[in-house]
Amino acid sequence: MSFMQALRARWADSHSLVCVGLDPEPAKFPAAFSGDDDAVFHFCRDIVDATAPYVCSFKPQIAHFAALRAEDALERLVAHIHTAHPGIPVILDSKRGDIGSTAQHYASEAFDRYGADAVTANPYLGRDSVQPFLDRADRGVVILCRTSNAGAGDLQDLLVADRPLYQHVAAKVANEWNAHGNCMLVVGATWPEQLREIRTIVGDVPFLVPGVGAQGGDVQAVVENAKTADGTGLVVSSSRAVLYASSGSDYAQAAAQAAMALRDQINRYR
Amino acid sequence: MSFMQALRARWADSHSLVCVGLDPEPAKFPAAFSGDDDAVFHFCRDIVDATAPYVCSFKPQIAHFAALRAEDALERLVAHIHTAHPGIPVILDSKRGDIGSTAQHYASEAFDRYGADAVTANPYLGRDSVQPFLDRADRGVVILCRTSNAGAGDLQDLLVADRPLYQHVAAKVANEWNAHGNCMLVVGATWPEQLREIRTIVGDVPFLVPGVGAQGGDVQAVVENAKTADGTGLVVSSSRAVLYASSGSDYAQAAAQAAMALRDQINRYR
Repeated sequence: MSFMQALRARWADSHSLVCVGLDPEPAKFPAAFSGDDDAVFHFCRDIVDATAPYVCSFKPQIAHFAALRAEDALERLVAHIHTAHPGIPVILDSKRGDIGSTAQHYASEAFDRYGADAVTANPYLGRDSVQPFLDRADRGVVILCRTSNAGAGDLQDLLVADRPLYQHVAAKVANEWNAHGNCMLVVGATWPEQLREIRTIVGDVPFLVPGVGAQGGDVQAVVENAKTADGTGLVVSSSRAVLYASSGSDYAQAAAQAAMALRDQINRYR
Repeated sequence: MSFMQALRARWADSHSLVCVGLDPEPAKFPAAFSGDDDAVFHFCRDIVDATAPYVCSFKPQIAHFAALRAEDALERLVAHIHTAHPGIPVILDSKRGDIGSTAQHYASEAFDRYGADAVTANPYLGRDSVQPFLDRADRGVVILCRTSNAGAGDLQDLLVADRPLYQHVAAKVANEWNAHGNCMLVVGATWPEQLREIRTIVGDVPFLVPGVGAQGGDVQAVVENAKTADGTGLVVSSSRAVLYASSGSDYAQAAAQAAMALRDQINRYR
C-alpha cells in the first residue's frame, strides 16, 4: 500500500485528521525520565502508544533527534510505530533540499534508513532536487508551500506576475510534480486565508498543517478553509501542546487527552 | 577568531580559494578500504591530510554521512580537521531550514555537535528561520542563492518586480541578514553571468561556489566574474573530481594533485 493509500485508509479508520509531532526536548520531559540514558526513545514511545488511537499519522522532527545525537532512537521509534501501530503512516519532518545527486542520499536517509512513509522537502532548489523523493511513488513528499512562521512571507509572499511565490509553488506541485499522486503541501495553520487560496489552486492535494496549539493557529478557520469536499485532505500537526500537556506522571494520559480533544475540535468543523 | 576572520587568514596563508567537498560514497572507495568498518572516516581523513596544503576550507556534505549511518564518523572527521590542520575552517553542507524553534536545534547540530565553523542554509522559510544561525556571530552562514543544479531556475529565476528571485535573496542577505558580517552565498559555478550580477549586488560578501569539475562549471569564468577586488571572495568547492581522482592505491596523491591543479588554475585568473 502506498503512503497516500495508507493515509486515506487511516483517515477513515481513525476518524481523525490529527498528526502528533514528535519533537523531543529532554528539558521538558517528566521527572521520571531523569537518569534514563534512553529517555528520548522511551518518552516518544510512551507518547506514541498513548496517542495512537486518536491520530492519522506521526511526524518526528529530525533536528530534535540530531541535536541530541539520537539518530538511533529515531530509527527505533519509527520501527516501533510500524510494529506496534500498523497502518499509521510516519512523516519524517526534515525539510531537505539539495542537488539531485545529493538528494538521492537524503531520500535514502528518510526512506531506507529511517523507514519513513513520507518526508518533508524544500522546493527552493527546483524540481530536480525533489525528483529523487518524487520517484519513490509508494512514499509521500510533503513540499513546503506557505510555512507557519512569522517570517514566512519574506520570500514566500514576493509577487511573481501578480501572484505570491507560494501560489506558484502550489501550482507547480499540483500540475507538474505530482505525476505519481504522492505529493502533499505544508501550509501553516497560522494563515487561514492562504489555506483557502491554496486549496482552490491544488484541488484535493492534501495539506500538512503545522501551527495549531503553541503557534496559535485557529482550528475552525483551518478546517473550514482547507478541508476537501469529503471532509478530509488535512493532516493537522500538533507537537508541544500534546507532548508536554503535563510534566507530571500523567504525561501520557494528558497527551492522549490533548490529541483526542484536538481530534474532536477538528471533527466539529468537517 | 571568527569563521570569517579564519577564512580570510586561510585565503592569505594558503594562497588558495579551493574547498574540498567531502562526499563519501563507499562504492567509489579504492579497493584497500573494502572490509574496513570505519572506511568512511579513514578515506575522508586520508583525503583531508593529503589535500590540506592546497585548500582554504573543507566542506563535508551531511547527506552522504546520514545515508550511511555515519554521523559518528562525521563528528570525528571535523575534530580531526581542527586538530591536525588548525586554521582550516569547516563548512558543514546541510542546507537546513525550519521555523525558529527548530532551527535552534539545527544550529546546535551544526555548531555544537559537529563543531562546524559554518553551515549552509536554505532561505525559503524567511529570516526568522535563519536567525538562530545568524546569531552565532563567530560562525558562518552560507545561504543558498543561485544553486548549481539544472532545475535551479524553477523558483530562483521567477521574476519579482523585474528581478529574479535569487537577486532578491542576494540583496536581503547583504543588506538585512548580514548584520554580524557572517554571511556567505551559494552561487553555482554553472552560472557565470549570475555570479557577476550577484557580485554587483552584494559587494564583498563571499561566495561558496560548487559546480566546477563534475558539474561542468568553467573556472576562468567563475573567477573573473565573481572575485572581489583583492582577488579573493570565493570558496570554490570541488568534491568528486578530487575525492575520486584515482581509484587505485594512489588515491590520496591523486586527490592532492587535483586540489593543487584546481588551486593553480584558479590563481591564474585572480
